[in-house]
Amino acid sequence: MAPPIMVTMAAGREGEWRIDTLRTITGEPLLAAARLAVLPGRHPSTDGAVWSLLGSTGAPRYTTQSEQAALVAVQPELGRAQATSGAMIALRKNDAWWSLAADQRRKIFEEDARHIAMSMRFLPAIARRLYHARELGQPFDFLTYFEFAPEHAAAFDELLAQLRASVEWRYVEREVELRLSR
Amino acid sequence: MAPPIMVTMAAGREGEWRIDTLRTITGEPLLAAARLAVLPGRHPSTDGAVWSLLGSTGAPRYTTQSEQAALVAVQPELGRAQATSGAMIALRKNDAWWSLAADQRRKIFEEDARHIAMSMRFLPAIARRLYHARELGQPFDFLTYFEFAPEHAAAFDELLAQLRASVEWRYVEREVELRLSR
Repeated sequence: MAPPIMVTMAAGREGEWRIDTLRTITGEPLLAAARLAVLPGRHPSTDGAVWSLLGSTGAPRYTTQSEQAALVAVQPELGRAQATSGAMIALRKNDAWWSLAADQRRKIFEEDARHIAMSMRFLPAIARRLYHARELGQPFDFLTYFEFAPEHAAAFDELLAQLRASVEWRYVEREVELRLSR
Repeated sequence: MAPPIMVTMAAGREGEWRIDTLRTITGEPLLAAARLAVLPGRHPSTDGAVWSLLGSTGAPRYTTQSEQAALVAVQPELGRAQATSGAMIALRKNDAWWSLAADQRRKIFEEDARHIAMSMRFLPAIARRLYHARELGQPFDFLTYFEFAPEHAAAFDELLAQLRASVEWRYVEREVELRLSR
C-alpha cells in the first residue's frame, strides 16, 4: 500500500486533458472549461482555474481480501499510451449515506449494488483511481478518475449506466461528469 | 452524521490545555511545549506554534450498526465542565496495516483487539473524538482526543494499557501521548 496520493483537479485553459463534455447529472453544476489539469499534490490557487478540486487516495473502505486480490490481478495502471479517452466524475453522497454504519454501507456497496463485481467486468479495459475528498473539506466526497482507449467508450457508458441504476446511487446527491480526451 | 469537523492541534505557548506530560511511546518524538490549542478548522501557520497537526472527523471505518447504536446510547459529549483532564494521542500505523483489505482491518480492530467492546467499559467516563489525518498528508494517521474528570485518570490509563497490549497495536509504528489539564 503506497502512501496517500494527493491530487488537484483544476479546470481552466490549461492541462493535459481536453474537456469534451461537462454534464451535471444531479445537484449543483460545475462551470464549463476548456481543459482539465490533473496535478500531483495540493495546488491551492492555480492561475486561471475556473474551479479546482482536491482529493487523496486512501485505504479502500469496503474491499475484502479476496476482492482486493481479484482486482490486483486484472486492474491496469494509469498512463497507458492507448488510453487517450478519460473521465472525471465528482460525487457527493447524502446525509442518509453518511449516517449509515460501516457494515450497512458495505452491504449496499457490494451486496446490493455489486459495485466491485460488476466493475470487474470492465477491467482491464478501464483504468481508474478513486480519490477521497470529503474529509478534506471539499464540496464533493469523491473524485473518480478513469482512462481508457476510445474504442472502450461504449463499455464505459455501460458501466456508468449500471452504477447509476444501483441502490447505492440513490444516495448520490451531487454528480458532475467530465468526459476527456488527450 | 454531521459534516466532517476539521481540527488543528497546535502546541506552543497558548491554548486552553496545559501539557502536563508529552511522552513518545514509539517512533520519532514530537517537541515539548507548554500548552495545546485545539482549534476548529485549518490553521496552516499558527504564531509561535512548536508544531501543529491537522485532522478531520469522518464516517467510522469499522463500526457496525449494532455497535454504533450501543455507542450512541452511552458516549458523552465533549466539553463537560467536570472533564478538566484530557489526552491527545497521535498515532501512525505501518505499511503492513495499510496493505490489509477492509475486512482484515475490521477483524483485527474488533474481533482480535476488541477495540469497541473493550472501550465501551470506559463510557461515559471518558469522552473522545477520533480525527483522521492520513489522507490529509499529515505525519500521523490519527489524532485521538479524550476528555475526562481527574478521578477517571486511572481508568484512562487502564484503557491505554489494554489497547497497547492488543494485536491492533502491533501495527502502530509511531505514537506520542500528551496528557492535558485545564
